[in-house]
Amino acid sequence: MSKNIAVILSGCGVYDGTEIHESVITLLCLDQHGAQVQCFAPDITQQHVINHLTGEKMPESRNVLVESARIVRGQVKDICEANANAFDALIMPGGFGAVTNLSNFAIEGAGCSVNPQILELVKAFAEARKPVGLICISPALAAKIYGPGVKCTIGNCPDTIATLDKMGATHCECTVENIVEDQARKLLSTPAYMLGKSISEVSSGINKLVERVLDLTYENE
Amino acid sequence: MSKNIAVILSGCGVYDGTEIHESVITLLCLDQHGAQVQCFAPDITQQHVINHLTGEKMPESRNVLVESARIVRGQVKDICEANANAFDALIMPGGFGAVTNLSNFAIEGAGCSVNPQILELVKAFAEARKPVGLICISPALAAKIYGPGVKCTIGNCPDTIATLDKMGATHCECTVENIVEDQARKLLSTPAYMLGKSISEVSSGINKLVERVLDLTYENE
Repeated sequence: MSKNIAVILSGCGVYDGTEIHESVITLLCLDQHGAQVQCFAPDITQQHVINHLTGEKMPESRNVLVESARIVRGQVKDICEANANAFDALIMPGGFGAVTNLSNFAIEGAGCSVNPQILELVKAFAEARKPVGLICISPALAAKIYGPGVKCTIGNCPDTIATLDKMGATHCECTVENIVEDQARKLLSTPAYMLGKSISEVSSGINKLVERVLDLTYENE
Repeated sequence: MSKNIAVILSGCGVYDGTEIHESVITLLCLDQHGAQVQCFAPDITQQHVINHLTGEKMPESRNVLVESARIVRGQVKDICEANANAFDALIMPGGFGAVTNLSNFAIEGAGCSVNPQILELVKAFAEARKPVGLICISPALAAKIYGPGVKCTIGNCPDTIATLDKMGATHCECTVENIVEDQARKLLSTPAYMLGKSISEVSSGINKLVERVLDLTYENE
């Protein structure tokens, strides 16, 4: 039986939305393994719009759902339509959108809040013991979803790791080609571009994460 | 020796720029084969901005170079900095940007013109007998680059094929997992999303194209 996987997007572009390579590699690997995929994003205004050539803020306003649609050729739904019961697992690629649009971790750090629709959805997967994959900077949300003691990886920046610790997460070191598994919680994470210097490296870790997420969905049968 | 490959982008998103899956799969396959990649895009205003969720035009103006930067985490240069002498091959992914931003094929059909900087650059590769890969709708530019008799594939839409014929190209049928090679001209093409129903199918054809482009660069040694 083909598995149904929800993928959460947060815009289109590493500096103000979803990391594009990470999301495409996730979608490709899921499709290569015969999974059915539905992407979701919140219908909200981006926290900011960044010129990806210069790194500067642009005096524009863009919508997270509308921009996310670019990554998936229009095939994305409003997060309010997502129901954990309809899916076997959830994956959230990285990009600053995860910490500026889906949450305000980039600004508030340990005191951040997560978009309520996102938090409710991912918590429903966690409570149903369905596997969740968090890529790159997305594990910043792990403690908010799973509570204290959750194990995950988020690269090697000491400040980011200290912030995760403060939120109650247990950070585990991990190379870019590998994944960290919190077995009790069925949470997988991989550093991706938090560490990766090349798209191939990032691809190795994400492929492992996707394959392990799919393996765990079979354990739930 | 690692090969240097130029990749031409035309924005960020299938309906008004570069097809994102096609470009990321191209970049991933090139990196997995040890190639050095530099992306280029023209510093011009997009012909239009499309809401990828609804398909409708948006009352906005975006720049092709700036939006292309989203696909490559900022690592893109203005096409005016590109010099065919510095590269072993060139690849152009698809997306409507190829026929609205890099050329006006989408509007003018057989009477279209190609952005002069793009045309000059790709012609320089053709004249130096360096391999060129055109993906999806990009072979619409083949006759403008190579002149009459050039062999390529562009999917199965009768109108598009008739327009290519009118421009002097010789259309060859090809499945999504395969490529067409014009051996005399070292031009490779693959239908990608002109035919593809899934990202895996598209990936199969693009990987073959990238591998053949790299093989041909070694024949030039």
